[in-house]
Amino acid sequence: MLALTPDAPPTLLVPRLERGDAEAAVGAPALTFADWADGSDPYAVASDLLRPAGRYGISDSAWALHLLGLQAALPASSYRALTDCLPMLRAVKGPDELARLAAAGAAADRAYEEIVHMRFAGRRETEVAADLADLLRQFGHEQVDFTVVGSGPNGANPHHEAGSRVIADGDLVVLDFGGLRYGYGSDTTRTVSVGEPNAKQQEVHDVVRAAQQAGVDAVRPGVACQDIDRAARAVITEAGYGPQFLHRTGHGIGVTTHEPPYMVEGETQPLVPGMCFSVEPGVYLAGEFGVRIEDIVTVTDDGVRGLNTTDHGLRVVG
Amino acid sequence: MLALTPDAPPTLLVPRLERGDAEAAVGAPALTFADWADGSDPYAVASDLLRPAGRYGISDSAWALHLLGLQAALPASSYRALTDCLPMLRAVKGPDELARLAAAGAAADRAYEEIVHMRFAGRRETEVAADLADLLRQFGHEQVDFTVVGSGPNGANPHHEAGSRVIADGDLVVLDFGGLRYGYGSDTTRTVSVGEPNAKQQEVHDVVRAAQQAGVDAVRPGVACQDIDRAARAVITEAGYGPQFLHRTGHGIGVTTHEPPYMVEGETQPLVPGMCFSVEPGVYLAGEFGVRIEDIVTVTDDGVRGLNTTDHGLRVVG
Repeated sequence: MLALTPDAPPTLLVPRLERGDAEAAVGAPALTFADWADGSDPYAVASDLLRPAGRYGISDSAWALHLLGLQAALPASSYRALTDCLPMLRAVKGPDELARLAAAGAAADRAYEEIVHMRFAGRRETEVAADLADLLRQFGHEQVDFTVVGSGPNGANPHHEAGSRVIADGDLVVLDFGGLRYGYGSDTTRTVSVGEPNAKQQEVHDVVRAAQQAGVDAVRPGVACQDIDRAARAVITEAGYGPQFLHRTGHGIGVTTHEPPYMVEGETQPLVPGMCFSVEPGVYLAGEFGVRIEDIVTVTDDGVRGLNTTDHGLRVVG
Repeated sequence: MLALTPDAPPTLLVPRLERGDAEAAVGAPALTFADWADGSDPYAVASDLLRPAGRYGISDSAWALHLLGLQAALPASSYRALTDCLPMLRAVKGPDELARLAAAGAAADRAYEEIVHMRFAGRRETEVAADLADLLRQFGHEQVDFTVVGSGPNGANPHHEAGSRVIADGDLVVLDFGGLRYGYGSDTTRTVSVGEPNAKQQEVHDVVRAAQQAGVDAVRPGVACQDIDRAARAVITEAGYGPQFLHRTGHGIGVTTHEPPYMVEGETQPLVPGMCFSVEPGVYLAGEFGVRIEDIVTVTDDGVRGLNTTDHGLRVVG
């Protein structure tokens, strides 16, 4: 537990066994340390670092076990999830963070440029997913978080991961992949065609491509997040596929893959230079196929910069 | 959220976008489903599934965000972490679970039998760790959770992972690796010698090997968990290395890698057939080297069965 209070220097509470490593870590000189031994109560030590009736923000993903421990040790204290009380705390990235996000995006782009030369037809989705994971690692990701391969009708499920379906000639295949490089996330989607696409596949891909571009073109400081969603959605709705665009247009990215700001109807937060997020409209035709195109972009002083640079055309693979 | 209450059938609450996948999943026929749409409040729906003043167990690792949402929606409800209130709920494994744990252990054993033929001297710990991860996947792990490679003095830190240190002739190297196969965990440790060990390395390895065997030999139904720790620790203490055995002797394993029962002083829970846990004593000589040997074992009707079968001798690697 990293305790940040106005009463004391930032204090990191660790198991005694981990104290040596923690004190040797980058950033340790900025911290004070506390520890507890196996067999003793860590919440007793933790409560000494907090005010008995204090109000604290806590990481969204902190364990319930620990929150309950703090609530029991300090019954008058209260807690709110950080995304609820400070949603934009990490939304604006600094130069070092932008460099890491750009490096992650560049590695994802290199992985895409390689995977399109590999065999798709006749292989299972899981095999292509494994290749994609290997490529992300090869190009510098220390962690691979997802490698979605949604072929044919599986592509019409926006949350499909990768399954045992054998990819066939004539399929569209949604590839959505990412992980961490230097601790920051990549998240890129391209849809490829196994053999030449038919007219409907090409038409839907054109619509999604135009929608994605419209979303990106709308990005500049001061514009509300929901306007990015509206810009992308308008293109798809006008083409008649509005009901088949099943999700929000984008999410922030940084040390986690999904975080504020969200490009979604109702989010009026204005864009600020340094914010980084995805623009990823899609169209999902149940039982047939799906198309999604996703880039990570960052808001600049006067517009937008893409952190993915591979082209958006419907690439034909073998 | 899977809601289990005496008032209603087991109900799984999912985002509407995930409902189709959830209803198609294995086990779905045993469940009722509820959902919420993007933009609405999931905790309002969740609170309809619980009693306003009910007392509930909650997964240790449930997100604080969700617990706070439930507490706000149902201020008179109360929660306890499942490991606190029902520590042994998942401790006894059924035949299908034992088969999966055995399959995970067998895959880890095959990975070990391969890694000892690979090059250690002159390579970074991280390179050997990557090989070990590849082997675990090759032998059927769908997820690799950790591949510790602690060479020379790094082996003396029981929580070292793998770093940039180049492994040298004369090093002992602690290899601690595991992940999930068919959803159940493996977790195995062996210590190898790069070139012939010196007398002290061999002596410490002999002590740890004897301690690990003593721990395993103590396993049978009705024995208290703490007696496994005591049996292993006695051997190390008698050899004069008691203060250098820095951690508890073992932890349960199943769908998570660390769970009750814990083989630790103070845990008086008696062993029951079907319990699965690690027996992993170690000796850590700061600045010099470390030795740890770990097998997963299960309690049988009249004793113990090991889920790892590779030999415990100090293997010499190149």
